[in-house]
Amino acid sequence: MNRYPAPDINDLPEDIKAKVLEVQEKAGFVPNVFLGLARRPAEWRAFFAYHDALMLKEEGSLTKGDREMIVTATSAANQCLYCVVAHGAILRIYEKKPLVADQVAVNHLKADISPRQKAMLDFAMKVCLRSHEINDEDFAPLHGHGFSDEDIWDIAAITAFFGLSNRMASFSNMMPNAEFYLMGRVPKAKPAA
Amino acid sequence: MNRYPAPDINDLPEDIKAKVLEVQEKAGFVPNVFLGLARRPAEWRAFFAYHDALMLKEEGSLTKGDREMIVTATSAANQCLYCVVAHGAILRIYEKKPLVADQVAVNHLKADISPRQKAMLDFAMKVCLRSHEINDEDFAPLHGHGFSDEDIWDIAAITAFFGLSNRMASFSNMMPNAEFYLMGRVPKAKPAA
Amino acid sequence: MNRYPAPDINDLPEDIKAKVLEVQEKAGFVPNVFLGLARRPAEWRAFFAYHDALMLKEEGSLTKGDREMIVTATSAANQCLYCVVAHGAILRIYEKKPLVADQVAVNHLKADISPRQKAMLDFAMKVCLRSHEINDEDFAPLHGHGFSDEDIWDIAAITAFFGLSNRMASFSNMMPNAEFYLMGRVPKAKPAA
Amino acid sequence: MNRYPAPDINDLPEDIKAKVLEVQEKAGFVPNVFLGLARRPAEWRAFFAYHDALMLKEEGSLTKGDREMIVTATSAANQCLYCVVAHGAILRIYEKKPLVADQVAVNHLKADISPRQKAMLDFAMKVCLRSHEINDEDFAPLHGHGFSDEDIWDIAAITAFFGLSNRMASFSNMMPNAEFYLMGRVPKAKPAA
Amino acid sequence: MNRYPAPDINDLPEDIKAKVLEVQEKAGFVPNVFLGLARRPAEWRAFFAYHDALMLKEEGSLTKGDREMIVTATSAANQCLYCVVAHGAILRIYEKKPLVADQVAVNHLKADISPRQKAMLDFAMKVCLRSHEINDEDFAPLHGHGFSDEDIWDIAAITAFFGLSNRMASFSNMMPNAEFYLMGRVPKAKPAA
Amino acid sequence: MNRYPAPDINDLPEDIKAKVLEVQEKAGFVPNVFLGLARRPAEWRAFFAYHDALMLKEEGSLTKGDREMIVTATSAANQCLYCVVAHGAILRIYEKKPLVADQVAVNHLKADISPRQKAMLDFAMKVCLRSHEINDEDFAPLHGHGFSDEDIWDIAAITAFFGLSNRMASFSNMMPNAEFYLMGRVPKAKPAA
Repeated sequence: MNRYPAPDINDLPEDIKAKVLEVQEKAGFVPNVFLGLARRPAEWRAFFAYHDALMLKEEGSLTKGDREMIVTATSAANQCLYCVVAHGAILRIYEKKPLVADQVAVNHLKADISPRQKAMLDFAMKVCLRSHEINDEDFAPLHGHGFSDEDIWDIAAITAFFGLSNRMASFSNMMPNAEFYLMGRVPKAKPAA
Repeated sequence: MNRYPAPDINDLPEDIKAKVLEVQEKAGFVPNVFLGLARRPAEWRAFFAYHDALMLKEEGSLTKGDREMIVTATSAANQCLYCVVAHGAILRIYEKKPLVADQVAVNHLKADISPRQKAMLDFAMKVCLRSHEINDEDFAPLHGHGFSDEDIWDIAAITAFFGLSNRMASFSNMMPNAEFYLMGRVPKAKPAA
Repeated sequence: MNRYPAPDINDLPEDIKAKVLEVQEKAGFVPNVFLGLARRPAEWRAFFAYHDALMLKEEGSLTKGDREMIVTATSAANQCLYCVVAHGAILRIYEKKPLVADQVAVNHLKADISPRQKAMLDFAMKVCLRSHEINDEDFAPLHGHGFSDEDIWDIAAITAFFGLSNRMASFSNMMPNAEFYLMGRVPKAKPAA
Repeated sequence: MNRYPAPDINDLPEDIKAKVLEVQEKAGFVPNVFLGLARRPAEWRAFFAYHDALMLKEEGSLTKGDREMIVTATSAANQCLYCVVAHGAILRIYEKKPLVADQVAVNHLKADISPRQKAMLDFAMKVCLRSHEINDEDFAPLHGHGFSDEDIWDIAAITAFFGLSNRMASFSNMMPNAEFYLMGRVPKAKPAA
Repeated sequence: MNRYPAPDINDLPEDIKAKVLEVQEKAGFVPNVFLGLARRPAEWRAFFAYHDALMLKEEGSLTKGDREMIVTATSAANQCLYCVVAHGAILRIYEKKPLVADQVAVNHLKADISPRQKAMLDFAMKVCLRSHEINDEDFAPLHGHGFSDEDIWDIAAITAFFGLSNRMASFSNMMPNAEFYLMGRVPKAKPAA
Repeated sequence: MNRYPAPDINDLPEDIKAKVLEVQEKAGFVPNVFLGLARRPAEWRAFFAYHDALMLKEEGSLTKGDREMIVTATSAANQCLYCVVAHGAILRIYEKKPLVADQVAVNHLKADISPRQKAMLDFAMKVCLRSHEINDEDFAPLHGHGFSDEDIWDIAAITAFFGLSNRMASFSNMMPNAEFYLMGRVPKAKPAA
């Protein structure tokens, strides 16, 4: 369904191929974004370097669940099917809450999340939809919830980065892997003894 | 979480109580809309009479899956958490497609549905969002897909009715039952022999 | 002009026919909504049961004028010609203010109404246009004007119900009866002695 | 109710006073716009010179009814209470159609007007709301209905001028005279013999 | 590129011709608006009378730079190429700030202007985009910055008048003279000794 | 004015410092984006790797002027002061058209650009504002102008990347260097002999 054919995994540059195989090993499948963008190696490398800098960093008060929650909520605002489904799955896993992804995707104002997370999403949605209106008054409630200026940069940067991702996925008709839809909704099957 | 306390099932008028118990028997739980609206018996009766007239009717070319698809897509446009989750569940079951509800909720233009269903949702979304602009040109593509004028009335009426439902659920903070989130995503457990 | 032909009054089910004749007796004409929806008896019965539950109820602090004011203002936001003209007429009569319907239809913020009615319409407009954003802060000003939670339910439910009505009328091209346009603008002619 | 006090008619410059008295003589009352703007004589003179150049000109294919119809429809889009009520009244009189003003104010797409008038209003609404997107394709349907380029200038200029008027009336809280609401709705009383 | 051919300067009525020549003498070129509107002498006279009443008046606390700043910001909101470029040029000259016009055109919230000017533009933008919602609360911050009610009228009237101008320029495809783009960006060349 | 203090150039990692000095050497100043983002070296490296992959690539039919035109137009839609001013400057230089940046920033539909560039910007604006609605019909006009699918990927990716950039610049209050405002507007001074 993707408008742009994905390359064969064996035709990829070694560094990209290695990362793709590593993901496959870990997740059990290759999320489509890894192959969908790989036809442009230089862009692929920059995309995942940016992604990892924001999503895998250890510093700051944002948990991995917080980060995926920002992605899910803002990707829903951009109506990006790939990112809502894929990152909603990861969000469910990190937060260990099987309902939370659907909630923040439909209406974060009704989601069963903490007031701190609600403030975080309010800010992320403004960066997503009306970044030119961000001002000092938007920072105050975040400080009130204990977010530092570095945390706020993280919220903004994650939102901005996935706004890029949303546009690339929607424009190129990237479809989420079927595996994502169910992830984190049911307990993982235990390996047979 | 609901702003308005739901009545005790034993305090309900007999006809409402009977319907609630019937639903509970069939579904295994009482969807919150049945109790959430029951504090107003006259409104409850009208609401479900309307609902049944539109959703349970046998005539016409809209399948039950089509109907639930309209509800899911337009409720997402209205950002109604209750209806997206509850009717998304029923949609998955009727269509026997575990992925379809998330797809039409996030972006019906990207969903894996038939061109006929796509035209149906295009019309429903216009009734939902810009009903004052509906004109003859909106009917032509539906006729082209084999929808009769009566079918088109059904599409419009389902959209209009759930626009009411969306507003009542959002305003009163009605939350979807946890059971809905997973329904239709995994095969039903078979009863033990 | 209606896209869907109205049935002949003599072909209607007895209960519907009786109500239609009763309205005709009282108003001097049959408002088009009564015949326009009557081609679907089950929907007709649910529609008017809902309507009567909301618009004819005796309890609560909303006057009949308040109710019609909500209908007129929100129907104007939905650009529904039928409902603005028909309910604007009834509003003028109940409020005994020949100017009020045009005022709330064009811009309720400039209308010559009480601060309590202004707060009521602010809430109704938010339910009409952005119901997913309704939160506790929207209830406070209504409480401040003496509205109870049950009154607020009435405001929301009337708005939601006429959102349904607006979409049905616009989609089916239902035109207001000519009689409505002038009702409540001039003193009723007194019967000759 | 006007935020800015209107001057006493006797304090006006002679030319303005003369025009005001002439209008009063003709209409039986002084429309509020004449006094509301008169506190700024230079602006008053420019405003009415512009108004007369557009609304009283004899050339071109736009009738006086057409002109007032443009004003009523676009003023409704701008939610200007004064202009919808005042110019809706004049529209009813010129068109000799007591229903037309309410129709074009609520939804010009449903109004009982000619296809030529409908095309005229489509163009006016685009000038009103999205003038930066006007292009050659917007001119073609107007030419098809027999409008010349000069007529199209008239449509645009009337729309633009009343956009100014709408903003001045709304900002200054100018209220329509009570007399306008009923004008053109009922036959004029004939003088007693 | 203008859709409507401009008249030859020698065919203009004497009063208009005199003004055009005066402007040419002063500016070194004839801004296109002077010829673009001159094909309609009555409208031309009203337009420039209005313009001069608002932009050349000596009373009040708005400086000439303030006035041009309002024009530049609101014309950008209306995406009017002619007015942003022409009045941006004049703004740079009056304010003696070569950067200010680009700043207020792109996003007045980020511009390097005084808090007083920021409040002035906030109000102007609301008159431009949502005049029907202007209320007492919009006046308070302006009073707080020392603007009188007459100054506020000036802000609103300038916004409203250039809303007219924006629509005329965009509709008729009026292009800014090339001279404007650079004006006020570089020091004027001094005459050779 | 930036909310986040920029690091001292001497405290930067060697690779970033080298690139910054190279830019300074070439441009005569350090554009603020280089220092504004440098406080986060990993993000900085990913950002400029992405930037260079899209903006410096040699393949494809998009000229460097085309690329900067996309940036300027979409950054204006996002109201990002930094990017409009900085990339507008580069656009003027590459296109050798001192007027073009202001034109596409205010309203690309009125800009003096080729029909091919106009189609390119129409697509970019849709990716910027409504990427979820992109479909096959959006590709056809681009193919008609000779753009390949790879070119179209470039248009989309540049738009998406600068959407990220716009949000980072606006959120962090990054201001354009004063040098940009005038670049490309006047001929470069020639070195003295």
